[in-house]
Amino acid sequence: MLKAQYAERSLVPQAVIEAVPFDRPTLAQGQALVAVLAAPINPSDVLMLTGQYGQLPSLPAVGGSEGVGRVVELGPDTQGPAVGQTVLLPVGTGTWATHVVVPATRLIPLPNEADPKQLSMLTVNPPTASLLLSDFANLQPGDWVLQNGANSGVGSYVVKLAKLRGLKTVNIVRRESALAGVQTQGGDIVLIDGDDLAERVKVATSGAAIKLGIDAVGGTATMRLATSLSEGATIVNYGALSGEPCNISPRELVFRDITLKGFWLARWFRTAPQPLQIALLTELAGLIATGKLSTQIQATYDVAQIKIAIATAAQGERQGKILITPFHA
Amino acid sequence: MLKAQYAERSLVPQAVIEAVPFDRPTLAQGQALVAVLAAPINPSDVLMLTGQYGQLPSLPAVGGSEGVGRVVELGPDTQGPAVGQTVLLPVGTGTWATHVVVPATRLIPLPNEADPKQLSMLTVNPPTASLLLSDFANLQPGDWVLQNGANSGVGSYVVKLAKLRGLKTVNIVRRESALAGVQTQGGDIVLIDGDDLAERVKVATSGAAIKLGIDAVGGTATMRLATSLSEGATIVNYGALSGEPCNISPRELVFRDITLKGFWLARWFRTAPQPLQIALLTELAGLIATGKLSTQIQATYDVAQIKIAIATAAQGERQGKILITPFHA
Repeated sequence: MLKAQYAERSLVPQAVIEAVPFDRPTLAQGQALVAVLAAPINPSDVLMLTGQYGQLPSLPAVGGSEGVGRVVELGPDTQGPAVGQTVLLPVGTGTWATHVVVPATRLIPLPNEADPKQLSMLTVNPPTASLLLSDFANLQPGDWVLQNGANSGVGSYVVKLAKLRGLKTVNIVRRESALAGVQTQGGDIVLIDGDDLAERVKVATSGAAIKLGIDAVGGTATMRLATSLSEGATIVNYGALSGEPCNISPRELVFRDITLKGFWLARWFRTAPQPLQIALLTELAGLIATGKLSTQIQATYDVAQIKIAIATAAQGERQGKILITPFHA
Repeated sequence: MLKAQYAERSLVPQAVIEAVPFDRPTLAQGQALVAVLAAPINPSDVLMLTGQYGQLPSLPAVGGSEGVGRVVELGPDTQGPAVGQTVLLPVGTGTWATHVVVPATRLIPLPNEADPKQLSMLTVNPPTASLLLSDFANLQPGDWVLQNGANSGVGSYVVKLAKLRGLKTVNIVRRESALAGVQTQGGDIVLIDGDDLAERVKVATSGAAIKLGIDAVGGTATMRLATSLSEGATIVNYGALSGEPCNISPRELVFRDITLKGFWLARWFRTAPQPLQIALLTELAGLIATGKLSTQIQATYDVAQIKIAIATAAQGERQGKILITPFHA
């Protein structure tokens, strides 16, 4: 039994995390022991390792913030999902582990027959994509949405959720090798970023007014989104793949009334009404369980391979998510 | 009789504008001939000459977008303010002229005894400052506001209107020689921009939460406003004194929920309800006529001196506005 633990932070995240023994405890009343089936490595997890995230766990910490597992044991006199049930782990659990101990009441049952790898990515990227599409512009079926970093995890959910909602997507990627992947996911238009982006977007959409831009990149890529959007549009930033501050000219802000905002799912989970949160996660779980919503997975690793898994997740050029799928003998 | 006319645009604005004869016409019914008393050179006027503004007049055009005058003659059977009355010229009139011909119904009477130079600046900078303070954050008396470019025309009105509303201002300037001017205008705190701005703002305001940042500068100055504001704050940009795109990091947008917007008075005049526009201008005219609202004037020039007037207005280091005050023999 292993867990992937880090006791310090570093800009070389794989250097500070390692697999250490997880000692199976005696459960107290109310606790459940859950065998982790799958847990993704999200960009936010890597930023916690490097110390660049907006909220940081106290150290030592076990990595991983979401995942699914199967109930192995319940504590004495404990109500909860039955042993053997597939469950969603509470957000913020250190999920890169063969086993976790959590309060049984916080486990949410999921369909046993659904793919645990896809379900393990339920709580971070899909709600981010859903809220980016719903909370920053009043979009109607047939409207276009413009996003960069379209080959990211969130980007692929944006493509699929947009399609389910009758929206059309213009997807921007930064390298030619990423084009095909986004096309396969169902992106209506896929373009490579560059100086003449606004002109190419205009041609591709027949000059449609685009009211929402989704920015995962920052730097001058933000400016190119701005110039491609219609007057009065909003750009919502949720990432910094370029490592640069967002650039946007006063001309776009003042004369074209473009607004630049940010979105942070952690704040939404802190502030949105609980019923709204449950409704959103239930909707998304249903879409994932029925195969209507999914994303590409590049590779899976055991907890023992945490260093190579983190190094792979932290590098830019991937063809899908990296997951920890603990080996259970 | 002269008017300052330009028939082409250039990044050297004084090169393309010149004083040409104004031929006194025979007035038609409904027209008024008004002798211009004073008309400012605003940054937006200079941007029209250089072609960098959001809307450009067809050429040839007479420069100047606001000003006050005195009625000299009314057309036959024309109702309007009496000959001799001080009047506000309609926004968009080419006001850098000894005389203008305008529809008499569009003239708004102003107190004859008030200073026409201060009144001539009524319609551009004061409403901009007022709306920057009112339309982007819910401020209460005692709250702080942070602005850069504080020694600009708009900046000085922000200082005075904030004080009239019980708000306190942290004012940022870009050079030491501008400090004293803003202090004289009544700025509560005046600081020189620099890397440690957030820390100095925090010390100067005893760590007060600042919900509104007003940005006239762009570039990395926008970022320094962002880091100095409280979580959830809004920055509203209305200028580009640095000539650089606004920089703001995803960290500020995402983790600290900072919003970056723009404000353009011309759009407000196009979209705000007419009664609201009249109410605001009436309020501001009253404040100016009674001396409660004013800004510094560096120099006044006759229409014949338009080239030197424009060159002086277009350079950064000034101690107040440049006005055209036509010579009337």
